Amino acid sequence: MAQEDSGYRTYHMEGGDGPCSYSQNSNYQKQSVDSAKQMTNEMIDQYLDLGNHLNTSSPNINSFTIADFGCSVGPNTFYAVHNIIEAVENKFKSQKMESQIPEFHVFFNDHIDNDFNTLLKNLPTNNRGYFAAAVPGSFHGRLVPDCALNLAHCSTALHWLSKIPKEVTDEKSPAWNRGRIHYAGADKEVKEAFSAQFGKDLDSFLTSRGRELVPGGLLIIVTLGFPDGVEVSESSMGENFNILGSCFRDMVEEGIIADETLDSFNLPFYYPSPSEMKAVMEANGLFDIKIIEELVPPITREKPDLAVSVLHLRAIIGGLIKEHFGEGIIDDLFERHIKKYVENPIVSDEKHFKEASYFVLLQRKMDVAS
Amino acid sequence: MAQEDSGYRTYHMEGGDGPCSYSQNSNYQKQSVDSAKQMTNEMIDQYLDLGNHLNTSSPNINSFTIADFGCSVGPNTFYAVHNIIEAVENKFKSQKMESQIPEFHVFFNDHIDNDFNTLLKNLPTNNRGYFAAAVPGSFHGRLVPDCALNLAHCSTALHWLSKIPKEVTDEKSPAWNRGRIHYAGADKEVKEAFSAQFGKDLDSFLTSRGRELVPGGLLIIVTLGFPDGVEVSESSMGENFNILGSCFRDMVEEGIIADETLDSFNLPFYYPSPSEMKAVMEANGLFDIKIIEELVPPITREKPDLAVSVLHLRAIIGGLIKEHFGEGIIDDLFERHIKKYVENPIVSDEKHFKEASYFVLLQRKMDVAS
Repeated sequence: MAQEDSGYRTYHMEGGDGPCSYSQNSNYQKQSVDSAKQMTNEMIDQYLDLGNHLNTSSPNINSFTIADFGCSVGPNTFYAVHNIIEAVENKFKSQKMESQIPEFHVFFNDHIDNDFNTLLKNLPTNNRGYFAAAVPGSFHGRLVPDCALNLAHCSTALHWLSKIPKEVTDEKSPAWNRGRIHYAGADKEVKEAFSAQFGKDLDSFLTSRGRELVPGGLLIIVTLGFPDGVEVSESSMGENFNILGSCFRDMVEEGIIADETLDSFNLPFYYPSPSEMKAVMEANGLFDIKIIEELVPPITREKPDLAVSVLHLRAIIGGLIKEHFGEGIIDDLFERHIKKYVENPIVSDEKHFKEASYFVLLQRKMDVAS
Repeated sequence: MAQEDSGYRTYHMEGGDGPCSYSQNSNYQKQSVDSAKQMTNEMIDQYLDLGNHLNTSSPNINSFTIADFGCSVGPNTFYAVHNIIEAVENKFKSQKMESQIPEFHVFFNDHIDNDFNTLLKNLPTNNRGYFAAAVPGSFHGRLVPDCALNLAHCSTALHWLSKIPKEVTDEKSPAWNRGRIHYAGADKEVKEAFSAQFGKDLDSFLTSRGRELVPGGLLIIVTLGFPDGVEVSESSMGENFNILGSCFRDMVEEGIIADETLDSFNLPFYYPSPSEMKAVMEANGLFDIKIIEELVPPITREKPDLAVSVLHLRAIIGGLIKEHFGEGIIDDLFERHIKKYVENPIVSDEKHFKEASYFVLLQRKMDVAS
C-alpha cells in the first residue's frame, strides 16, 4: 500500500499561472469536461445506487467521497467535480431523498511533481460545497484505503503512459522509433509497443480503483482516442506530432541536438480505440462496462486559433522536453514549430479532425474480489 | 462547511528546504514530538477503543483515519504520525487483534499558504504504511466530513493565534500595545486581549474537531505554555521577544521603520497555562479531558546554540515580518537581533527556561451533540 511509483516516470503539466502554464492553456480539456457534463448527469441518475451508498455506511459516516485522478492544477478538475456533485444531488432530489444528501469529500490526485500549491490555491472558496484534499502519487497504484471512494473520475489523463516502452528506444528492437517522437506514422511494431504499455497502464489503474471503490461504486473515464479503424497518422493530431518531430530533426541536422538525444525521446501518449479499451476492461474483470460512447459534440470542430494550439501543446509537453533536452532549446523549438504549423494545411483541415473524446462509465462489480 | 477562514489571517512557516526554512530549522518542535512519543503510546494504549472503531465502521470500511492539524512542511509531522500509527498497531497487537489492524489514512493539514509541494515531496516513500492526503485550510473551521476521523493530532500549533486582537493595535484601547511586538512585559490588558483570542481560537478548534471525530475518538494536543502563575516576561522566551522588539524600536529611531508600522505589528503567539486550557476545554464541553501534563523531559534544558536559536526564530516569524515590513529589513533586523541576543545573559540562563510543553489528551464524548 501507499507505494510511490518506482520504475515509473512522473509527468506533469506546466505549473503556476503564467502564460505557458497549464492552468491558462487547458481549454481543450475544458471542452471535454463540458461535453461530458450531460452524460455524467444521465449516467449518475441511471446507475448511482443511493441505497448502496447509504447501507454500506455506518450511522456515523454519511459522506460521499469522490476522487479525481490526474487532476492537474485546475480549473477543469473543479468544473468536473462540481458537475458530479450536482448530478449526485439531483439523484437524491429526484428520489425524494433530499434530506439525506450527504457531505461531500473530494480527493484531488496527481503525480507528486504536480504543482499542488497552485491546485490548492485555485480551489473554489465560496460555498464550494465539499471538503477537499490533495493526494499525491501515481494513479497506477493505490492511493486511498479499500472502499474509501463512492465515485472516481479521470478525465483526459489515461492517454499519458506511465513510461515509454523500452523497445522503442532500443536500436536492436524492431520497435525502435528512430528519429521520431511518437508512434504516429511509425512502423506497426512501434504502435504495438505503445498499445501494450497502454493496456498495462489501464489495467493497473482499474485494479487500484477496483480496491478503492465501494462495491457498486462508479468510475467515470473521459479519454482521448480514435474510432476503430482510424490511425493517428491520418489525423491533424498525428500531423502535429510529426511537425514537431521534424523540427527536432532539423535541430539535429543543425547540430543543436545530438542524434541519440532525439532517438531516446518519445512522447508518452497513446490514443486507444473503443475496442482496445473494452478489451482491457473486460480482461481486468473488476467492473461492469455500462457505456463507452463518443462524446457528441466531441471536441470543437471550429477552426482552431493556431497560436492557442501551439501554446496548448507547449503547456502539456514543455516540461517533458525541458527535462530531456534541457531548458535551452524550448523557445527555439516552439518558434520552429509554429512556423511549420501555420504553413501546414492538414492541421487545420476539418477532414483531419479525427480524434475523439470518449465517455466511459464503469461500475464496480458487487461480487468480485480484486 | 468547507469554508475558508474569512476574517482570519493565515500564517505559515518559511517554505522550501533552504537554510532559513522551517524544514531545516524545526529541531525545537522535534523535541516536543520526541518527548510526546512515550505519552502517546501510553495514552493510546489506555484510551483508544478498538471496538468503537470497528463497530462504527461498515464491513466495507476498515481504515483508521488520522489527521495532523498544523503540520507545516515536515519532517516533524511524519515522526508524529509514525509514532501514532505504531501506538495504534501496538494496541491491536496487545489485544491479540493483530489480524484486524486496519489500513491507515492520514490527512496533513495546514493553512492554504503552507508549502504543500515541499510537504508532499518530503513524505516518506519506503513502506510508509499509510495513505496520505493534504488538507488546506484553517483548523479553526471544518476541514473533513462529520465523523471522518478516528484520531486527531496537533503539535506546537495552537499557540499561533488566528488573528491579532483588534484592541492591541487600537490607540484608544487600554490594551494598545504601543512599541511592543508581544504581550511579554506589556500591561495586563494586552495579555488579557491575547488570552481572550486564544480562548476563542481553542474553542473553535475543539468545536470543529468535535464534529470531525467519531464518538470516542482521541484528540492529542502538544502545546507550548507556562505553568500556572508563571508570566512569559519572566522567561528567556519573553526576553527574546523583548530583544527583538528593542531592535525594531532602534530601527524606528533610526528612521528605517515608521512608528505606526511598528505599532500595528504584534506576534500572533499566546502561551496558555494548563488552567486556562482546561477552562476553555470544559466550557466547550465536547470532550472528556483525560490528561493535561507537562512533558518530562520538557524542551531541552541544555545551553542552546545561539546561532541556531536565532535561525529558528527567523524560520518561524520571518514570513510574518516580511509581510508586514517588506523584504528589505529582514537581514538588518536579524543581524541586530543576534548581536543583542548573544550579549544578553537571560536568554541562556537556565533559571529563565520556564516555558513548558504540555501533552493533552481529549476524548470525544459519546453523547453530546456538537
